[in-house]
Formats: sequence, structure tokens, C-alpha cells
Amino acid sequence: MMAGMTETPHPLYDRHADTLHRALTAITERGYWSAYPESPSPWVYGETAAADGKAAFEAYLGGDFPLDQPGAADRVATETSPFGVALDVRYPHPGADEVVAAASAALPAWRDAGPQTRVGVCLEILARLHRHIFELANAVQFTSGQAFVMAFQAGGAHALDRALEAIAYAYAEMTRHPGTAGWEKAAGKGDPLRMTKTFHVVPRGVALVIGCNTFPTWNSYPGLFASLVTGNPVVVKPHPRAVLPLAITVRYAREVLAEAGFDPDLVLLAPEAPGEKLASTLALHPAVKIVDFTGSTGYGDWLEANARQATVYTEKAGLNTVVIDSTDDFAGMCRNLGFTLTLYSGQMCTTSQNILIPAAGIDTDQGHKSFDEVAAGIAAAVGKLTADPARAVELTGAIVNDGVLERLDEVTKVGEAVLESRTVTHPALPDAVVRTPTIVKLAATDTEVYGREWFGPISFVIATDSTAHGLEILRSTVGECGALTAAVYSTDEAVLDAAEAAAIDAGVHLSANLTGGVFVNQSAAFSDFHGSGANPAANAALTDGAYVANRFRIIQSRRPA
Amino acid sequence: MMAGMTETPHPLYDRHADTLHRALTAITERGYWSAYPESPSPWVYGETAAADGKAAFEAYLGGDFPLDQPGAADRVATETSPFGVALDVRYPHPGADEVVAAASAALPAWRDAGPQTRVGVCLEILARLHRHIFELANAVQFTSGQAFVMAFQAGGAHALDRALEAIAYAYAEMTRHPGTAGWEKAAGKGDPLRMTKTFHVVPRGVALVIGCNTFPTWNSYPGLFASLVTGNPVVVKPHPRAVLPLAITVRYAREVLAEAGFDPDLVLLAPEAPGEKLASTLALHPAVKIVDFTGSTGYGDWLEANARQATVYTEKAGLNTVVIDSTDDFAGMCRNLGFTLTLYSGQMCTTSQNILIPAAGIDTDQGHKSFDEVAAGIAAAVGKLTADPARAVELTGAIVNDGVLERLDEVTKVGEAVLESRTVTHPALPDAVVRTPTIVKLAATDTEVYGREWFGPISFVIATDSTAHGLEILRSTVGECGALTAAVYSTDEAVLDAAEAAAIDAGVHLSANLTGGVFVNQSAAFSDFHGSGANPAANAALTDGAYVANRFRIIQSRRPA
Repeated sequence: MMAGMTETPHPLYDRHADTLHRALTAITERGYWSAYPESPSPWVYGETAAADGKAAFEAYLGGDFPLDQPGAADRVATETSPFGVALDVRYPHPGADEVVAAASAALPAWRDAGPQTRVGVCLEILARLHRHIFELANAVQFTSGQAFVMAFQAGGAHALDRALEAIAYAYAEMTRHPGTAGWEKAAGKGDPLRMTKTFHVVPRGVALVIGCNTFPTWNSYPGLFASLVTGNPVVVKPHPRAVLPLAITVRYAREVLAEAGFDPDLVLLAPEAPGEKLASTLALHPAVKIVDFTGSTGYGDWLEANARQATVYTEKAGLNTVVIDSTDDFAGMCRNLGFTLTLYSGQMCTTSQNILIPAAGIDTDQGHKSFDEVAAGIAAAVGKLTADPARAVELTGAIVNDGVLERLDEVTKVGEAVLESRTVTHPALPDAVVRTPTIVKLAATDTEVYGREWFGPISFVIATDSTAHGLEILRSTVGECGALTAAVYSTDEAVLDAAEAAAIDAGVHLSANLTGGVFVNQSAAFSDFHGSGANPAANAALTDGAYVANRFRIIQSRRPA
Repeated sequence: MMAGMTETPHPLYDRHADTLHRALTAITERGYWSAYPESPSPWVYGETAAADGKAAFEAYLGGDFPLDQPGAADRVATETSPFGVALDVRYPHPGADEVVAAASAALPAWRDAGPQTRVGVCLEILARLHRHIFELANAVQFTSGQAFVMAFQAGGAHALDRALEAIAYAYAEMTRHPGTAGWEKAAGKGDPLRMTKTFHVVPRGVALVIGCNTFPTWNSYPGLFASLVTGNPVVVKPHPRAVLPLAITVRYAREVLAEAGFDPDLVLLAPEAPGEKLASTLALHPAVKIVDFTGSTGYGDWLEANARQATVYTEKAGLNTVVIDSTDDFAGMCRNLGFTLTLYSGQMCTTSQNILIPAAGIDTDQGHKSFDEVAAGIAAAVGKLTADPARAVELTGAIVNDGVLERLDEVTKVGEAVLESRTVTHPALPDAVVRTPTIVKLAATDTEVYGREWFGPISFVIATDSTAHGLEILRSTVGECGALTAAVYSTDEAVLDAAEAAAIDAGVHLSANLTGGVFVNQSAAFSDFHGSGANPAANAALTDGAYVANRFRIIQSRRPA
């Protein structure tokens, strides 16, 4: 047995073993579980937590971000807040070779520490981040444009849950084989053949995580922690407009790594200057063997085609689709869909875009509703949620970037608005860019319009010949362009089954008859899969065995016993 | 719940559940286990089994192979036996679109049958193949050039073990999540949120298996059965010189599928005519989503670069390396290495090629041995095994194709032969092409020679400055060119540890101090991993979680409970 290769778990493993084992149970049951409370209430987090977190966030503004890592001598500041708040945080700005060299040097000791020690350290990083959850939430809010509660939940608690989920899957995968095994085979009349075999978990190399603007933590944490816990040093390349949440993440990760006796360069921040194309340089670096990316289809496709030395995980654009056939709760359906369209101004990769309704209308608990009545019902629900500016902005947040505003303008030319987008003045933050959702009416033949993603508070009500026609459109558009979510409303079991069959064919997750407090754009860690890897919107799911299994290899050695 | 999607396992699942569960235990323990006896003895298989199998094999020769599948109207015959036996079997010759269309049409019912039913059917296919193991062994022998016992073991029993191993991994992966789960989340003062979630295992699409000349079954079965059991129809494209073993496989697979009530087009044979490039056409077909390939580095690299619509698993060439530092059993070491070099005339992807020995010689139980004495010891062991033609051919088998003969000629020009290759006349099969191994002496600076694969009975003894130098060569050449096996001989624990560290860095499996009945070129299913996916010789291991996890996706549907 090699010195240092037999695992004596780090004390941090013992500290977090219960959490790990609860998470391991959760991923096999896939019922409800969460490790990190999603309520920002002082009853949960303490009286001063919110103010302390806000103060910590504000202390970063206008200064050099405290990170002792390569590139600290050079600085870059690229963020603009959708809420109109000056950020001006200056981050270390390492070169690609510099950051990859530092990461590579940190690899061997981390690899040799073994799965249990790595899990212990990673769970301690999550605990440390959880302790700073309000600081993280403020950073997510002011870079992404999410309203505070959403930033706290999606950007804090749920992101940590998804990280823990990824760690649990990776631990299960790394330990499905024993570290050593005896092998004994009968050999005729002689002594049996006896061997001792050792199975080493070996990382692939340096991992790169390319963050997005809208969900800098939630979309980055699964890949970051799946790669790190399997032994790969991670270079985090944030979106230029959402650096701070990942800088905070890297800061506390490095703090824990150093405390645990490891090289903090196992996690490095690599922000890019405008026009620098650092993401591409890093993605093509020969030492980079894993890339996780969330963002545009164009760049995701480029990564898949060009970063051939790496295993590439992408989440890209899609056409999230709703098929409405009938409902026994028309008000609940409209309220539910209205909330989905309003939340974060529809700037979620899971927000429904294409709502397919039979032109002849639908049967409901309120009697037959015409196509226009269904559209008006959804529009009214959005209208109600956004009528009061103070309440509206706590749901919509702010518009993440100018691209969304341009699409809001462009969409006015493609069809009749059932609901027009309005500008809302944020009561507390007058420079915040706030828009309410628009809903535009289209014909089923308008595939040139609804056949591409209109990211932002833009959705379409599309008149179909029938529910079957709607399912056919779901099947063809999602099959071709992908989707992260699909939904169906029907009181007819046969229609629900047909929708499920269409979803299976198109490779998209389906939600049926959501009328209450569960929304199609939300997925719960440990239970719901996010993305499927079975349609063009994403080449992997968060989080399953396939998401973690290729992040490491087993290297075996055998000796006569 | 969708009609037909809830699994009521097929009776074949019950029939084979014990085998499945024993295999599931084996893959978590990775000790010794085998499901299919490797001895062709009549005591195991019955008095008439060998003769019946030979007769069944001979009945195929010179005729139309009995396969009722697309392409049966056209026929192709491309095989030439290394043993000089006329084969002339004519196989159905479908076009790419034809075979992919047939496979695609068979997919939905197989997908919807669920994991347990698919496992039951696949294990019945293995049982059926096992019943015809002598027929398979003859087909493997006379197409690959393996001697009979090896063809029976590697091409029959061990191939079936590897198939079962892949099925067990796939089953574990498909069922790590439940088929359905309840989800209940507290919601303040109101009723909890309750959802019912269904998780469907969904295949990727049509799978393509591209077989090789030397191990038509052993190298094809893991991919074939991993893809099939996860719901993907499989198109089997055999090597033009080794069609029969896979034709027999497809025949019995189709027989079982039809008996079990499934479309036999779930498994199809697609042999190619000379120059047709059917493998490439199939590999680029948009409906083909998985490709398994064993063969040359050039073609494997081409597949990885071009079959972008598919997940591609490749096993390619490499530089299998031995580092000799010292031994306490010089005779055993020479005997063990001599056997490895002789078996199947070194035509295994796992046969050692580069044997690195300090120029100053090594310490042994027989005192110090000079470099030349070590080389002579290995050469003598080969000589002893090959001295008697009748015994020799039962180890060496025959030379698989002219490329090997050309390399045997070429290698005479690159260095001094410690052992020259000899032509052996097969006592029973006078047209068999039989050659004994050659061993050529090189300097460590001859990287242009030993830095590429010389597939066949060709190995090099290479003089190094020291053991450390040898390990450095292992690290660099295997890191750059890949390897499927590595071995070390040393009495010094520090050297064994250093070799293990080098193997981990290079990403290659290591065998230490093999002097008895375990050989570096042999890997045992359920215990040894074959290939690692961590060096250029293969992008995946046979068989682990990563090998199966990407062959299917989970599609979820959720409804309020």
C-alpha cells in the first residue's frame, strides 16, 4: 500500500458525516429534504444575521476584493448592478497559464487525501458559506437582479442544497468500489491464486466552471463541488457581471482548504476583462479536463465542439412549454402560471415561454373558456402580482442586462400583446431597471417567432388546433431546440398520459396540473432533476450519476497477496 | 401513471434475479467471482458439448448465415481465417438507413418495458449464448486466430462475464433512484405541498458497436449489453475479418428478444463490404447516439472527433510497459513474462511491449543479473513455451492479419534481436499462419521505435539508467501515448510505491511482482478494471459507473398527489 494513499479521514469528515449520510439517503429516496433553511427569518438565522450579511456585502464595494491568490497584483472590475447600485469591486486578475499552473500544483495532495477527507473539507466549505449566506444573498441580489428573498433562497440555501446533492452523488460514486479488495481464485490442485487489489480514485485534471449572470451560485455550485470533491482543482470563471457571489465563494473555500491543511489554490477565481476571452483560453488549455458551463446555446455549442480535451457539461437555452387542455381549477392554474411568468421577470432558464392553448378554448371548473379568456386569465394573474410597485419588485427583481430590454422591444413587433410590459419604479432603488412581463398572442404557424428562446419576461400564448396538436408542437420544438421544463394542464388521464409520453420522447421533465405552491420553474434539490441531458437545452442533469461519474477515474494496482 | 410504464417484470427477470444479485454483490466487492465456467471440460459442459459446438460452427461455413433481419436479400462475405480454414459465410448486408430505421422502430416498447424486464431479457440472452459457448468459441478461434482454449475462455466465458458485469452496473445505475417518489413539504399554516414524482429511464437512441478482429466478443459485449439493457437498440458492425462470432451473438439475441415478445430488431448485424465505410456512415447517423469502438488509435480518434452527435467509447492502441527493478523469483518472473509475450502471439491489447531494465542489471534471488541475462531469461522462457510446435500453437494461436507479419519484418531492422521470431507449422492446420515472439534490444534513447505500438508478437527490452529512469519513461510514454497495462518487479517497497505513484500519474493499471498464474495481460471481470479512461489508450474503463451512466437519462414527471 502506498504511503499516504490509505485513507485516514480528516476530522472534518467526522464533523459532517451525519449530513453526508442524510444526503446519501435523500438521493436514493428523492423525496423532500433540505439541509439549509430557505427562510431568511431572524427566527431561523438570528436577529443580526441579515444586517451583518448586508454590512459584509457593502464592505466589499468599491474596494479590492480580499483574495490572496495568483493575479492579485493586477485587478479587474466589470460589474454593473441591475438595481443601479455602484459595485466597483476590484478582483485579482490572473492569466490562464498562471491560474492553471497553480491549480495543477495543488492536485496531487488533494487527490491522495482520498474521498472521505475531500468530502469532509467540501462539506465544511458549504457550512462556511452557509454561515455567510446573507452576504452571499446580497451579492447574488445586486449582481443578478433577483429580489432579496429569491437571492437568499435560490442563490443561498438552494444553491447549497444542490452543492450537497452533487457531493453526495460523487461520494456514492467514488465509494461504490472498495479501496482495497482481496481476490482468490482456485487453481486446480495447487494453492489458490491470491491477489490484493487497490483502487485509487484519480481526478481528471483541472476543472473549469464558467458562471452565468442570472444564477451565479445555483448554476455553478453543482459542477464546482462535483469536480472538487472528486479531486480536481477548480478554476472559477465568473460572468463579468456577476463576479462577487463567486468571489465570496472562492474566498471561503480557500479559507477552509488552508485551515484543513491543503493548498488553497485548489479553488481559484479567474475573472475576465472585457474582450479578453479568458473563458475560451481556459477552456482550451491542455490541462483543463472538465468544463461546466451555463449560458447561451452559441457558446455552449462552441465549448462542446472545441474543448475536446475536456469533458464538457453545458446548460443552454430552450423552449419551455406549457400545454393547456382543461382544468378543474382555472383560478389556481392562472395564479400558478402568473407567478411563474412574474418571478424574476421570467429570467429563469426554467420559465415557461410557449403556452399552447386550443384555439377553440378549454373546459374548466368555471365552464368553457375561450382561448382569449384563458390568455386573459393568465394575464390578469400577472397583472395582480405586479400592480403594486413595492410588492411587484419583490417578485420581479430587476432586468439583468440590456439584451432583455432589447427583446422586450423587439417582441412588440411580432404579435398582439395580451399583456404589455410596464416599467416599474423601484420604491427604494430608483435606478433599478424593472419591467413586468408581457404575453404575446401567436398562431401555431408562427414557429419562426416561438421556435427560438426569448429570454426575459416574454411569453407566448399560441393557438393550436387541439391538445394533440399542442403535444405535437411540444414534441417537435423541444426535441429540436430543447427545454428545461414542460407543463400540462388536463382533467383527462389520457391527455396526461399522452403528455407524459410526449415529454419522454422530447426528453424533458414534465409538471402536471400545478395550481398551488409548486411551480414549473422551480426544482427541489434531492428530489427534482434539473435538466435531463436528453434534449438540446442541456447535455447533463443536475444532479445524477452521469453528472459525477466522469469527473474521476479508478486506477487499480494489484500485488500477489 | 402512464399505462405500460409501471414495471411488471417479465418472468425472465425472476428466472435470472439470483444471478443479477450475485453480480451486483460482485461489483461492489470486486473480489473473485465468475458466472460462466471457463473450463471447456466435458465434466463441466457435458460429453457432447464440444462436438456439438464444432458441428454447429461448421454448419455455418460456406452458407447464408441464418438471420431474418433487414438486408437479408443482399449478402456479404469478407472473412479469411488466420488458421487457413475456408469460412465463406454470407451475411445479410443492410444499408445504414435501413438498419437504423429498424432499430429506431424497436425502441419505444423496449424503453417502456423498464429496467427489470430488460435485465431479465438480457440475462436470458447471455444464458442462451452460454448454451452455445462451444459454437461461439470455434467462431472466435477461426476468425481471430486465438487457440481454442483461449477462444473458449476469452471469447466465451470471460466475454459473458464482462457482459454480465456491464449489465449489473447498468442495473445498479438505472435503479439508484426509485421509479416513483412522494414529496411532501411543509407550507406554513396551510396543508403541506404534496407531489407524486415518476422517474423514467430513457435510452439515448440507437447504439452502434464496432467490433475488432482479435476479440470480437470480449471487446464488444460490454458496450453491446450496457447499451441494450439501458434501452438502446444496438447495431453491431463487426470487423470484416471477424463477423461470425458477432453474427452468432446477434442470432441468439434476436431469438430471445422475439421469444420474450420484443422486436428482434433491437439487435441487428451490419457487416460491411470492402471499402464501403459502413462503420463511418453509421457512426455519423443522426439517430446513432452511442458508439462503442475497439481498434486503431487513428480510427478511434476520428470517431471521437466526428461522431459528435453520439457519446463515443473507444479502446485504442497503447504502450504497455514493464519496469524491472529486482525480484526474489527470477525464474518465476521470466516464466510469467514469457507466457504473457507468447499468449496469442502477443496480439492482445494488454500484452507488454516495452520492458525497461536498468543497463547495470538487477538484483535477484539468483544473484545479480546483467541486462543481457535478464533479457535472455525472458527470451528463454518464451523459447521453452514455443519449442514444441504442437504445444506452441495452443498458446500462440495464429497471426490475425498481414499487418502483424509486416511489423515482424520491419522490426528486424530497428535493433538487435534477443529472440528471433520463428515460423511454426501447425500440426493439424497446415495453412495456419503461426509466428513465435521476437524480443528486440533497444536503448532508452530509441523513443522513435518504442514510442509507438508494434501490435503483435513484438516486444522490446530497453536499457535504462536506473529504475527511476524507467519509471520516468513509463510516466512520459504512457501519459502521452497511453497503455492498458503496466507492470513492475521489485523487492523494494519504496520502488513499488514509486511505481504505483507513476502509474497513478500516467493513469494506467499496475500489476506488481507477477510470478505465478496471474498475468499482466489478463484482467478478471468483476474484479479488475480493463482500461482506465485516464490515458490515451481508452476513454473509458470496462466496466464502471462512468461506462454505463451516460447510456440513458432520467425523465421525470410530477403531479400533485
